[in-house]
Amino acid sequence: MRKEHDFLGELDVPDDVYYGVQTIRAKENFNITGQTIDSDFIQSFAKVKKAAALANMLTGRLDKKIGDALIKAADEIIAGELLDQFPVDPIQGGAGTSINMNTNEVIVNRALEIIGEKKGRYDIISPNNHANMAQSTNDSFPTAIKVCISHKSKKLIAALEYLAGELDKKAEEYKDILKMGRTHLQDAVPITLGQEMGSYASSVRRGIRRIKTAVDSIHIVNMGATAVGTGLNAEPKYIKAVAHTLSEVTGETFKTADNLIDTTNNTDGFADVSASLKVTALVLIKMANDFRLMASGPRCGLNELKLPPRQPGSSIMPGKINPVIAEVLDQTCYQVVANDLAISLGVENGQFELNVMEPVMAFNLFNSMNYLTNAVNTFVDKLLIGLQPNSKQCHNWLDKSVGIVTALLPHIGYENSAMLAKEAYTTGDSIREIVLKKGLLPKEKLEHILSPEQMTHPGIAE
Amino acid sequence: MRKEHDFLGELDVPDDVYYGVQTIRAKENFNITGQTIDSDFIQSFAKVKKAAALANMLTGRLDKKIGDALIKAADEIIAGELLDQFPVDPIQGGAGTSINMNTNEVIVNRALEIIGEKKGRYDIISPNNHANMAQSTNDSFPTAIKVCISHKSKKLIAALEYLAGELDKKAEEYKDILKMGRTHLQDAVPITLGQEMGSYASSVRRGIRRIKTAVDSIHIVNMGATAVGTGLNAEPKYIKAVAHTLSEVTGETFKTADNLIDTTNNTDGFADVSASLKVTALVLIKMANDFRLMASGPRCGLNELKLPPRQPGSSIMPGKINPVIAEVLDQTCYQVVANDLAISLGVENGQFELNVMEPVMAFNLFNSMNYLTNAVNTFVDKLLIGLQPNSKQCHNWLDKSVGIVTALLPHIGYENSAMLAKEAYTTGDSIREIVLKKGLLPKEKLEHILSPEQMTHPGIAE
Amino acid sequence: MRKEHDFLGELDVPDDVYYGVQTIRAKENFNITGQTIDSDFIQSFAKVKKAAALANMLTGRLDKKIGDALIKAADEIIAGELLDQFPVDPIQGGAGTSINMNTNEVIVNRALEIIGEKKGRYDIISPNNHANMAQSTNDSFPTAIKVCISHKSKKLIAALEYLAGELDKKAEEYKDILKMGRTHLQDAVPITLGQEMGSYASSVRRGIRRIKTAVDSIHIVNMGATAVGTGLNAEPKYIKAVAHTLSEVTGETFKTADNLIDTTNNTDGFADVSASLKVTALVLIKMANDFRLMASGPRCGLNELKLPPRQPGSSIMPGKINPVIAEVLDQTCYQVVANDLAISLGVENGQFELNVMEPVMAFNLFNSMNYLTNAVNTFVDKLLIGLQPNSKQCHNWLDKSVGIVTALLPHIGYENSAMLAKEAYTTGDSIREIVLKKGLLPKEKLEHILSPEQMTHPGIAE
Amino acid sequence: MRKEHDFLGELDVPDDVYYGVQTIRAKENFNITGQTIDSDFIQSFAKVKKAAALANMLTGRLDKKIGDALIKAADEIIAGELLDQFPVDPIQGGAGTSINMNTNEVIVNRALEIIGEKKGRYDIISPNNHANMAQSTNDSFPTAIKVCISHKSKKLIAALEYLAGELDKKAEEYKDILKMGRTHLQDAVPITLGQEMGSYASSVRRGIRRIKTAVDSIHIVNMGATAVGTGLNAEPKYIKAVAHTLSEVTGETFKTADNLIDTTNNTDGFADVSASLKVTALVLIKMANDFRLMASGPRCGLNELKLPPRQPGSSIMPGKINPVIAEVLDQTCYQVVANDLAISLGVENGQFELNVMEPVMAFNLFNSMNYLTNAVNTFVDKLLIGLQPNSKQCHNWLDKSVGIVTALLPHIGYENSAMLAKEAYTTGDSIREIVLKKGLLPKEKLEHILSPEQMTHPGIAE
Repeated sequence: MRKEHDFLGELDVPDDVYYGVQTIRAKENFNITGQTIDSDFIQSFAKVKKAAALANMLTGRLDKKIGDALIKAADEIIAGELLDQFPVDPIQGGAGTSINMNTNEVIVNRALEIIGEKKGRYDIISPNNHANMAQSTNDSFPTAIKVCISHKSKKLIAALEYLAGELDKKAEEYKDILKMGRTHLQDAVPITLGQEMGSYASSVRRGIRRIKTAVDSIHIVNMGATAVGTGLNAEPKYIKAVAHTLSEVTGETFKTADNLIDTTNNTDGFADVSASLKVTALVLIKMANDFRLMASGPRCGLNELKLPPRQPGSSIMPGKINPVIAEVLDQTCYQVVANDLAISLGVENGQFELNVMEPVMAFNLFNSMNYLTNAVNTFVDKLLIGLQPNSKQCHNWLDKSVGIVTALLPHIGYENSAMLAKEAYTTGDSIREIVLKKGLLPKEKLEHILSPEQMTHPGIAE
Repeated sequence: MRKEHDFLGELDVPDDVYYGVQTIRAKENFNITGQTIDSDFIQSFAKVKKAAALANMLTGRLDKKIGDALIKAADEIIAGELLDQFPVDPIQGGAGTSINMNTNEVIVNRALEIIGEKKGRYDIISPNNHANMAQSTNDSFPTAIKVCISHKSKKLIAALEYLAGELDKKAEEYKDILKMGRTHLQDAVPITLGQEMGSYASSVRRGIRRIKTAVDSIHIVNMGATAVGTGLNAEPKYIKAVAHTLSEVTGETFKTADNLIDTTNNTDGFADVSASLKVTALVLIKMANDFRLMASGPRCGLNELKLPPRQPGSSIMPGKINPVIAEVLDQTCYQVVANDLAISLGVENGQFELNVMEPVMAFNLFNSMNYLTNAVNTFVDKLLIGLQPNSKQCHNWLDKSVGIVTALLPHIGYENSAMLAKEAYTTGDSIREIVLKKGLLPKEKLEHILSPEQMTHPGIAE
Repeated sequence: MRKEHDFLGELDVPDDVYYGVQTIRAKENFNITGQTIDSDFIQSFAKVKKAAALANMLTGRLDKKIGDALIKAADEIIAGELLDQFPVDPIQGGAGTSINMNTNEVIVNRALEIIGEKKGRYDIISPNNHANMAQSTNDSFPTAIKVCISHKSKKLIAALEYLAGELDKKAEEYKDILKMGRTHLQDAVPITLGQEMGSYASSVRRGIRRIKTAVDSIHIVNMGATAVGTGLNAEPKYIKAVAHTLSEVTGETFKTADNLIDTTNNTDGFADVSASLKVTALVLIKMANDFRLMASGPRCGLNELKLPPRQPGSSIMPGKINPVIAEVLDQTCYQVVANDLAISLGVENGQFELNVMEPVMAFNLFNSMNYLTNAVNTFVDKLLIGLQPNSKQCHNWLDKSVGIVTALLPHIGYENSAMLAKEAYTTGDSIREIVLKKGLLPKEKLEHILSPEQMTHPGIAE
Repeated sequence: MRKEHDFLGELDVPDDVYYGVQTIRAKENFNITGQTIDSDFIQSFAKVKKAAALANMLTGRLDKKIGDALIKAADEIIAGELLDQFPVDPIQGGAGTSINMNTNEVIVNRALEIIGEKKGRYDIISPNNHANMAQSTNDSFPTAIKVCISHKSKKLIAALEYLAGELDKKAEEYKDILKMGRTHLQDAVPITLGQEMGSYASSVRRGIRRIKTAVDSIHIVNMGATAVGTGLNAEPKYIKAVAHTLSEVTGETFKTADNLIDTTNNTDGFADVSASLKVTALVLIKMANDFRLMASGPRCGLNELKLPPRQPGSSIMPGKINPVIAEVLDQTCYQVVANDLAISLGVENGQFELNVMEPVMAFNLFNSMNYLTNAVNTFVDKLLIGLQPNSKQCHNWLDKSVGIVTALLPHIGYENSAMLAKEAYTTGDSIREIVLKKGLLPKEKLEHILSPEQMTHPGIAE
């Protein structure tokens, strides 16, 4: 055990741990979720600390020997070491001060070791004076969230691209599978299964663009804002440098906000990113539900798609297979929609110079991004790649349909068409039969009008 | 024009209007929704004013002549007159002070007329000293909301009872229509259409109980709490009397809260009522969606139910009919779920002795209750009453199903049953055929096991 | 009375109304909200109809005489006439078919009058064949929503620009009013009231950009998609023309979607616009709450701002003034956040080729945009313009504060500074006094460090 | 490695694990949250399995030797063993089949060991035929959720009782600390700090009652419903017995639903429990925010409460202490409100005979209950118990206030009182001074009216 103190007093700290007194207080104070900090986030915070140290060395305020040690320690975390030294609960009071101090302490104690000193010798390297130099939790914490979002967004976007790409393949594969289009769950007019797959792909790509736009917009950071955004204790030279060093460390372009006060006070950027996830989730729910509907049956449902069987579907009903992968995507998306509300509640509850609810925002953003990435990859790997269309069934449905009467509209008018439909429903006859029987259109023209190409592409058959 | 003043100064008031200076200020201050106050709510507020006047007369603080005039004026509003004298916007700042003062002013000006005086003679009868005697907005406004909720809940519950009753009739009518039960949208085991209708009825009745419980719990009022719940300026005698007079005026039992401060500070009762509406809405969404699914087709869907046609379904697709009534119920329920969030946001934003966000809570509660009542009645009148089952189609589906293999489980085990199911799916043969072909069970026993009665009721066929 | 029929049968239509049989059915079917269609939306739909007619004339399918009459009728609606001819409920089943047919019927009946024919002579001009030519509800309805959103967004953005502009003025006016910055509602370090106002302005402007981005993204329309997005019955020439004519009619650039099927199936664009409103509302809530906190008191609160008195604040507490305008902004924003949920619920519930929940999305989007525009304008007109800072009180608070010790950090270190703060809290002495008493820093340097300029701008005093 | 198979084929299962082939499939299928099943829930599920085995032994269908072994295995889990054998992800498709089969497999493999057989010998004891006898996931899974909710609710209610009890103590301790009551954050009329604490206690107790009511209502289970609620393969004798054995095993009264179909189809009971948590969370947010406001300052805020210091508040501002415990309660409550939305989304998405979204409901319910229990206990232990009132500051505020003028209302009228207030605000004089100077009331009467007792209790001073 070593002794550490802060201005509230002294505490025993186990000798082997790299965190210090403030982390220990935080551990005692916050036991809410039973979870620890997302490891991407720890690494993102280490990047912020490294960037700050580099900038402080550039301004000359940070001694080279200390700075080098801090950077080496940060690099170890970035490389995936020491991740077990972050025991604080992600839902915490104090606006992230505990995560920030946890990071400062681990970096400093490791840095002390690196220069051959004992852990806890904060008189030599200090968590507050050196690791946190020219920073406040109020700038470094939201910046670390942004670095982490940016990092996670790449995995999420890769998953969504993967999904869109596989959907495109299906669009091509199924481009000649004609089927009944449905609106209101009612028979409408023909479409191809490929067109449907292409529509999903297109909607997913819009989600990607939306997420990218939102994530881009949080590449504006408030490093140098320090406590309330005024930049107290942060030199202009440092402020200028730190966005640059952060860009170097992360390999991405981060810029300093024009208005550091606003960027410190407000957290709407997080709500915006979350909204982009939510809207994407809504699109995915619709897609997953369509798959569930098309795979319904197999005997007493639409049975247009065969999903790869993944597990026995029932503990009691032998042979039953359920669309479990589509269901897990749905549920994950509900979670994302719900997490968006937690973030919204956080954002609206800021006051004056800071929004102290940032930890719950970070917790939900990271969960949403992780879960959604996993669920989308799962959907592709476990469902989409092994998907089989039931072309025969698609054809059977279409064959029975009345909806194709719509194609006759430009030729015989809405009212006549409606009468034809009514007759078809009443008699059970097909539209083709009735039209020919009544001599409304010559056979050849009728077949031309009702050809798949005519039915599923713009234009009026002449 | 007459002149009226309050402590902010003097204003012109049109001679013919019954409201006064404070209402005019409110009209100018709040132009948000373009709507006016719900008429049930105006009448509920008048009941509160009448009850307060009665109680104040009992304590002797309110002069009989004035009191009688106030009561007569309130009675006119309760009878549906003067409702056009409430021009304030339902979303308003001031925690309902504007609605309260609007009510005070209309009652006082009408009372002045009744006793033969001119409108505006507040030196004779005063909105603040007489109509508002021993009251604050902070007790009379939430009390009026509660009176109104109670009133509206009767209409809503009547609608839900109507729905449950009609569903019960369908349960009886359809009790012999055997159909495929579905879980995960996949074929499961048989059920009757009547059992499904009975399940909807049962779930609606649980909603009714839930709403009743929540509404009962807000029959606890804080009349006498006055400004902050301490009861300043309200005599104990009055406090005791007013719950009694309110019960008389409304014909319902209202009780005074044990803790008037809590009941003034907190608005969770409104969140609770709204939650009961929300949970009921969720149940109704599920029901409406089942109807939409069962009515899907008619040629390319489940086609188990025929909904009464209500309007042409498409401007372009002739003969198309859509389940528009189920769709409008769904959408109304989404609105109820969303309104619940507005109420939640209001409730969490109370501070100290009052929650100033009560107006937005009232607005959303009343809308939710009105809309839901209308949508439920619409669902019964326009859809449920004219509903037709498609027994033949139900039978056809069931005939093709494999799911009935589950009934064989106790007789041949899960694994054998699963192999049977697999064979059925592969060969297209029916379960019956395969069992008999393989001689797994004697025909008579098989038929007994697979009989409708056995399949849709508890027990293992012997 | 005149007789009209559709394929469900014949109905009596009052002679004087311009709507027809389908509107009458819709009126009977949907009685949910007691409201009618937003007039901006009616006019937007008329613009879509005009654009379609122009495009249909270009392709030669629409007779010039009929086309001209339809356009003239549409122009009258665009000019604000006939708005009382749209009685359908905004929450409706049928995915907007009723609004579309209401519009078709009114335009056609007025067009018939224009060419000297009787209303109801659909054999001459037909709602389905002419007004709806080459259209479906499924393309014209979402397009009209988009036209309407675009229109309303201009008013909303004007309101937000007005707000940001007035906040900027306050930022300039109050730039020398030094005050205590607060984080966690606890004393932090100094800031100016002008910096705070500038931060609000900056955050509002980010809201504007976000709304613009979202609204821009829904200038992609699916005109020509017809029923399911395949473009059945819409000629390529028409599809090409109609985005152009729509741009002409509306004065804005609308483009045809690359994937008409996706754009018909999916409604995430509406969720995206709503999310941009929601995020902006969250920012406004924070701002309004800061104003409420700063105006708290006047005797027993922060009392840093004097809001213009708008109405007596209490029916029982004489002389009380409440921040009613900030409160109404808060509540409006809660409604916007809640409406976003209704829209999300709608979006996730699309199925196959259409999302039938579009009406509830439109209802909530229009309400959110209207309410927010009104509330923002109200906030500026009734609160911000008449705002008075209480500089003296701001100064008094700051004078007592200990938080300025932070400025000493780079000079004496975190730990010494913390000890100073502790001593100040214990003894009640000021930081200045203790530093000088202890001789920690020379007076001149201390004053330089603690000067307003140093305290509220980046940098470390040398 | 041992071989196991299901009807999808054979898989290798590590010899040392107790779960089997279906768990392995589920592990591969669902990797969403990185979390495993809540241990309370595993134990609850084991109780359900034990109860089912007992009931099956009563009916004679389950062999005693097998039954005893299953029960012994279940008892071990209930005692906290084998909890590491449940690797499936809580967000999963399949409506809980994977959790159910995981439980069946672990119990069966342990039972096999108990009777001296090898794991995997399902021909001797079978997960589907024995552990799952007369059950489906569709009855055992929701029942296990209910058992778990009931269990967790006890811890939550204990935490809330603890909170209410400590608040009551504070109510008693602070009963003579007079302070300014505030509405709209504006000075209102006096109240005591004890009255405020009593109000919090009262509101928390209402939360307790609400949670109890909701939890009571889900003591209605659908054991015996099997696949779709019809009870196929469950004997009436078993159905009757199992509610009884479940009550014995859990020590609580569970009853069989009157309508097993409804109780299998619908999950609104979960939404109802979650709503009770949400409404309680809203109340707690309000309370936590009041504490944050009262503790604001210490120099530049209300400073009426001193919270026990828990950790240094800032990495940059020395000596700063933040209300971190109140903040973590707030954030936890936001999470609870958000989780309620995930549950609502799940509930509305049921279809036909089952709601397959139950896993995401369970996940969110359990998280909400765990987090809320932890946060409430934290609030009491780390904040409330060490709370110190700042009576002097409360007194100072009150002394300066004008709001006490309200007490004069019954004596001099609203309008005169308003003029007094205006004068006080303008001149800075106190109400006492002005009344006496103007001779409006004799000193003795004035002091009586303004005495603490008169000001904070109902009644009008005579």
